Amino acid sequence: MESWTHLIRFVAVEDGKIHLGQLVDSNRDVGEDSRNGYPIHARLIEGSIYDEKDTQSLKVCFQLLSPIDPKSCPFIRCIGLNYKLHAKEANFPIPTVPALFSKPRTAISNPYPETINIPKCAQDGTSDYEAELVIVIGKSARDITAEQAPNFILGYTAANDVSARAIQMKSAMPCFSKGMDSSCPLGPCLVSPTAIHDPQDLSIGATYNGVTVQNGNTSDMVFGVYQLVAYLSQGTTLEPGSIILTGTPQGIGYFRSPRIFLDDGDDIRVHIGKIGTLINRVHYE
Amino acid sequence: MESWTHLIRFVAVEDGKIHLGQLVDSNRDVGEDSRNGYPIHARLIEGSIYDEKDTQSLKVCFQLLSPIDPKSCPFIRCIGLNYKLHAKEANFPIPTVPALFSKPRTAISNPYPETINIPKCAQDGTSDYEAELVIVIGKSARDITAEQAPNFILGYTAANDVSARAIQMKSAMPCFSKGMDSSCPLGPCLVSPTAIHDPQDLSIGATYNGVTVQNGNTSDMVFGVYQLVAYLSQGTTLEPGSIILTGTPQGIGYFRSPRIFLDDGDDIRVHIGKIGTLINRVHYE
Repeated sequence: MESWTHLIRFVAVEDGKIHLGQLVDSNRDVGEDSRNGYPIHARLIEGSIYDEKDTQSLKVCFQLLSPIDPKSCPFIRCIGLNYKLHAKEANFPIPTVPALFSKPRTAISNPYPETINIPKCAQDGTSDYEAELVIVIGKSARDITAEQAPNFILGYTAANDVSARAIQMKSAMPCFSKGMDSSCPLGPCLVSPTAIHDPQDLSIGATYNGVTVQNGNTSDMVFGVYQLVAYLSQGTTLEPGSIILTGTPQGIGYFRSPRIFLDDGDDIRVHIGKIGTLINRVHYE
Repeated sequence: MESWTHLIRFVAVEDGKIHLGQLVDSNRDVGEDSRNGYPIHARLIEGSIYDEKDTQSLKVCFQLLSPIDPKSCPFIRCIGLNYKLHAKEANFPIPTVPALFSKPRTAISNPYPETINIPKCAQDGTSDYEAELVIVIGKSARDITAEQAPNFILGYTAANDVSARAIQMKSAMPCFSKGMDSSCPLGPCLVSPTAIHDPQDLSIGATYNGVTVQNGNTSDMVFGVYQLVAYLSQGTTLEPGSIILTGTPQGIGYFRSPRIFLDDGDDIRVHIGKIGTLINRVHYE
């Protein structure tokens, strides 16, 4: 059993170093608090997230980082079309098996003030957001059942699956169009399964410059969290620290009328119940 | 400039430890020699493959390993339908942009005697081989041109892009069907660009139980090696040690008549000119 329920990775005010810490007030939205400049206190966790010790020592957060260190993330799995209402808005049939693609670890980036950087090749006015629930694998998993899956999950966080739509439309394989640097902001915190209770009953959505654009619930997933872990572990070792982005609900910019796309300076936020808000601004390189 | 031209990663007879070494006789096919039990001598290379020193100390190879250590491989990119004759046999249009998918590093495995292990979920009689030329990235690359690409390439090796076809046919995204454990044997050695000269003029093929089943040339690629590196680096940092599988020529088992699939005990070999032969046996778990 972990000694944490709401873990942040952060740069501390006191020493300017990177630490892991348990939120002292886990009822607050650390993403919003950080954005608003409110002080965030955390009890330092020593060791790795798999073998940690609560030190009871307090530090103040200067900057939130992705709860998963990119350097210790062996693989990022992403599932396409995994919400029924999103498959419907895309006018695609509901997949019969999980549609898996991947992002490189260089895609991982931090919450605000770190920006989503749109590279030159994607500055065609079609960059899009996707709010996603993220599973973090805690123990090496292979050929496990959905019933066993909870034992292999370390926790949950939120991601924005930033997508270069015009490039995506040129290929059935989205690994390039969704794999650019900073196309996978993660945060604001890692929440333990004990604090999540039922991962298929979480509100999930996005706001774009303050306007709600995605507003769904993980109950609409085609393949649930435990089913995904079981399916993906077939013949395949899921390594600790690897993460799974579980798809996005309805309301992406590309399928809205009129369409919405990420422009320089935009504010884009992913909200997930019990996890909080992942906030970023958009920056055109 | 590297101090090596034909690098192997291997377990040495003398100490049972893993080393990097330059082949003493680089004119021989180290994959075939290893399979046949002939002695292979290598001059030890100390340090990493990016910052190495030739020690002039000799050791004998007990077992060949994948030239890239999976633990230091940040990402595996794979390109689909990248040979014109293969797109033709598949009855697909020639792609207008590279079709990118990925395998996890847990897919990397070693040359013979290590086996390609077909997991239970893929024992449906549709496991297939794909001979592929592999680019190994040597320096961090982003937004580079095809002309600059050679400066970022550390070397080349061969891969077998093992594919579970029945599962692949269920989704447009092949990351799961091509990403199982041991679905990416690599070897037999890493050859420097200086020893390859023109990567678009290499014979590439496969033999299945001694019968030639793939017999192509890298000149048939839709997107050449330098074009691929340039394309993939757009807005995306290609990390040192990451690898790119560049697609397979015509003759895969699924499109042969009659079809050929990998069965328990089969011998499957990938041959690439100037690199040698990557040999594996197939094992049904």
